Amino acid sequence: MVPPWSPLRACAHRVVERRLDFGTQTARRSRALCPPSGSILLGVDLLERLIAVVGEAHVVVGEDAEEFTHDATFMEHPLLAVVRPGSTEEVAAVVGVCHETNTPVVARGSGTSLVGGPVPLAGGVVLSLDRLDHLEIDVANTVAVAGAGVITGQIDEAANAHGLMYPPDPASVGMCSIGGNIACNSGGMRCVKYGVTADYVTGLTVVLADGQVLRLGGKLRKRSSGYRLMQLFIGSEGTLGIVTEATLKLVPLPRFQATAMVGFQTLEEAGAAVARALSRGHFPAAIELMDRNALEMVTHLLPPGFETDLEAVLVVEVDGNNREHVEADLVGMVEVLDGLDDRIAQSPAERARLWEARRRWGEVVRSTPHNYFAEDVAVPIGAIPEMLRRVRKLSEETGIKICTVGHSGDGNLHPSLVFTDEQRPQVSRAAARIFRDALELGGSISAEHGLGALKRDHAELEHGPLAISLMRGLKHLLDPAGILNPHKVLPEGPADDDFLDRQPGWYPDPDRPRRKAETGL
Amino acid sequence: MVPPWSPLRACAHRVVERRLDFGTQTARRSRALCPPSGSILLGVDLLERLIAVVGEAHVVVGEDAEEFTHDATFMEHPLLAVVRPGSTEEVAAVVGVCHETNTPVVARGSGTSLVGGPVPLAGGVVLSLDRLDHLEIDVANTVAVAGAGVITGQIDEAANAHGLMYPPDPASVGMCSIGGNIACNSGGMRCVKYGVTADYVTGLTVVLADGQVLRLGGKLRKRSSGYRLMQLFIGSEGTLGIVTEATLKLVPLPRFQATAMVGFQTLEEAGAAVARALSRGHFPAAIELMDRNALEMVTHLLPPGFETDLEAVLVVEVDGNNREHVEADLVGMVEVLDGLDDRIAQSPAERARLWEARRRWGEVVRSTPHNYFAEDVAVPIGAIPEMLRRVRKLSEETGIKICTVGHSGDGNLHPSLVFTDEQRPQVSRAAARIFRDALELGGSISAEHGLGALKRDHAELEHGPLAISLMRGLKHLLDPAGILNPHKVLPEGPADDDFLDRQPGWYPDPDRPRRKAETGL
Repeated sequence: MVPPWSPLRACAHRVVERRLDFGTQTARRSRALCPPSGSILLGVDLLERLIAVVGEAHVVVGEDAEEFTHDATFMEHPLLAVVRPGSTEEVAAVVGVCHETNTPVVARGSGTSLVGGPVPLAGGVVLSLDRLDHLEIDVANTVAVAGAGVITGQIDEAANAHGLMYPPDPASVGMCSIGGNIACNSGGMRCVKYGVTADYVTGLTVVLADGQVLRLGGKLRKRSSGYRLMQLFIGSEGTLGIVTEATLKLVPLPRFQATAMVGFQTLEEAGAAVARALSRGHFPAAIELMDRNALEMVTHLLPPGFETDLEAVLVVEVDGNNREHVEADLVGMVEVLDGLDDRIAQSPAERARLWEARRRWGEVVRSTPHNYFAEDVAVPIGAIPEMLRRVRKLSEETGIKICTVGHSGDGNLHPSLVFTDEQRPQVSRAAARIFRDALELGGSISAEHGLGALKRDHAELEHGPLAISLMRGLKHLLDPAGILNPHKVLPEGPADDDFLDRQPGWYPDPDRPRRKAETGL
Repeated sequence: MVPPWSPLRACAHRVVERRLDFGTQTARRSRALCPPSGSILLGVDLLERLIAVVGEAHVVVGEDAEEFTHDATFMEHPLLAVVRPGSTEEVAAVVGVCHETNTPVVARGSGTSLVGGPVPLAGGVVLSLDRLDHLEIDVANTVAVAGAGVITGQIDEAANAHGLMYPPDPASVGMCSIGGNIACNSGGMRCVKYGVTADYVTGLTVVLADGQVLRLGGKLRKRSSGYRLMQLFIGSEGTLGIVTEATLKLVPLPRFQATAMVGFQTLEEAGAAVARALSRGHFPAAIELMDRNALEMVTHLLPPGFETDLEAVLVVEVDGNNREHVEADLVGMVEVLDGLDDRIAQSPAERARLWEARRRWGEVVRSTPHNYFAEDVAVPIGAIPEMLRRVRKLSEETGIKICTVGHSGDGNLHPSLVFTDEQRPQVSRAAARIFRDALELGGSISAEHGLGALKRDHAELEHGPLAISLMRGLKHLLDPAGILNPHKVLPEGPADDDFLDRQPGWYPDPDRPRRKAETGL
């Protein structure tokens, strides 16, 4: 059975008068977003055309398509069909069909998004890229070439076999796809030393909104030639084009790691310690933070006897090519950090043990009987203590438990709001306050997850009207009909305290079983 | 005396029919590029308006403006006035005046460009950003905030005083400005390990073509929120907006370096050695290459007794926080490189000595009685030997001496053509062949210098018509009247063998003294 075409949700655009012409394009874009109602009648014909491109086995409709209606958030939306193309050419042909029929098309990797990124909010076609799973490690050129559907962790693993590494490591690295990582410019723990996804992309194949194939870059590592088109598609969350293949820079694999856990009695001490270590030449491969509320959830995973009366704990890792050097570097760094309690792993087993509290944090949160809502803000690293203080105060004022972990070397914090169904009406307001606090401190509402649908309406608060108007201009240039992943990234409603309350599915249907989606935290 | 308004040079656009609408905008853009001839009459009024913004002391005309008519190439063009604004607000006001009067405006840093980047080919106003020289090192947030006119090396020096480093280090690091580096996404020797300029920019203030001020990003290190507008301006060579201030990520300063020089009998051995070292976990801070022709010019600077019957030499540097570790790492890497002759510096003086041949290379080339033309291509690192072979063959066939140095860990080669005035007619053809060879090998015609005017016409050969049409769309979106740095980046003529011959000034005026401009090579 083909699910009915879903009506477009109402969208409110503010068109602000501006000197450059970006703003006026908004209105055209939002009108173009609305396909003619006759499209409903196109359903069967459209399906036949999609089947003609990818074969019947790769078009999924009805109940089998259910998993493609949602991501790792509470959000979901009916869709017309899931299409699983097997090549860039098939993606181009599918998008061409959508272009001709004015059908929304949403590219999807593994569906681990925490912001509603791949939820098909305008219905239409979900383009699952999982069959684009070819992977080549080109050792002579020190790059990987990966289809959009390749699981990110597999790229690193395959590179490791050749003494090379693909550094970006989102918490969901074992599940998420490289296409999704590129769409969201994903980060991870190692980014403090090695940079984010965007720093590693040297080539992209992109299917444009009309089905044309744009090939950018290649296996070369450096280029200062023309506008940086690749960077325009990276982080655009499938709204400007659909990435089908990427060439990725690899770096030498450090053969040894050394790990320590260091506790701090105050947030200020932890924050000052990070800045101090960096300015004394220590360049950790990870410097992960957990605050008191986060620690309380994983005390059973801390090293035996570890001090628990702490406001913050850092898990620090140093890597390199020589075991003794790496261990000596770590000892030096732990001295500079100067914490209240510290543990330096003396064996691989102890290393794994030290990482357990941080790495299994997401699993612990997902397994609570309560609901959780994961934030992903960034602040300048000097503002981490103040941001953590504000989050703690918010937790005290609202009674919502907020546990924060994060990548402190990047200023990237993940406050997770843990709440009961009764607390649900307050969560939206609390989450919006976290957005505003991060922005007040010179930060961002999204460090590595993207804006998706969830954070969309707060984008102008971060970027200001001129930048948003320019973003709308770019969207109009690349997707004038607005068929690519509608209702994502660009604001459609007010940046207010009710942003979650307005999202479909935030208040769960009591008659349906709760879904617990898999992702990394 | 006010130099006369210079007529626009003829420009030929090929408008190719395309499905998306980028192409048709080209025509509008190129018409808009041509200011009404009445503009000539505006000269005096324009000058008065510019003086009203920045004061008479900061508007330069006539002979005093001569140094602003050229860069470090042979290219030059008359201009109307040089304006030296003292703040972003003054830049905005000057651009506003140019917008209203349809006057071309060219942002300029230190004029070290090797591609004609800041040469005012449409005349008009040159906006010298040298007075935007404020610099702040924010240690707590581990960032620098620099005005566009700050000399790049000063940022690194100031960061060093706080135990921090700004890694990108173009050969002209002591002369070039950070604004120019951002405009060209500059690289340097340390980029193999630390990345290029674009990897360090966390915030930008940009004056748009109509004088509006766009503030992007800030002191935070990570962001996945909305389209990556900053990346659009980086590398756009002042054709999409004018960067007036940047916030730059700093990293821990490694306190020790160890340096070696390693010789190879064949190009293949040198190429294989680089790939082998990277895949064995060695992550050098520099891995610089010189080919036989380059070596011949600096044999007097090589270590005493160093083998000279070599096709290639690598200068390798390792850095870190512990002297012994760094030295041991280097020894291990030199073993893996397995060259015919190698020298490991045993003292700071020996380190300096090993660097001399490479670092003073540019000086030696500039001081020859001959002319030189510096190329800047990139190829995938596995293709370095083949690229060097082709360059050598070209040198043999044409009789033009071509000496190549480069950043081999990035695949970035700088073949310098050294020639007499009699050979000048053949240089354009040889340089065009180097472009084509790099592209055939999957490379780029510009790794770190930008396209400017010199390489503009070969851009479509590299990027293809679809990408160029999208670039034209971006240009039209951001600068519909085409007043920002006209005749740069986007092709205006055929990608042929005569591209140099067509450039004004390539054949020097025998009645004028030759100019030798300062830059890094």
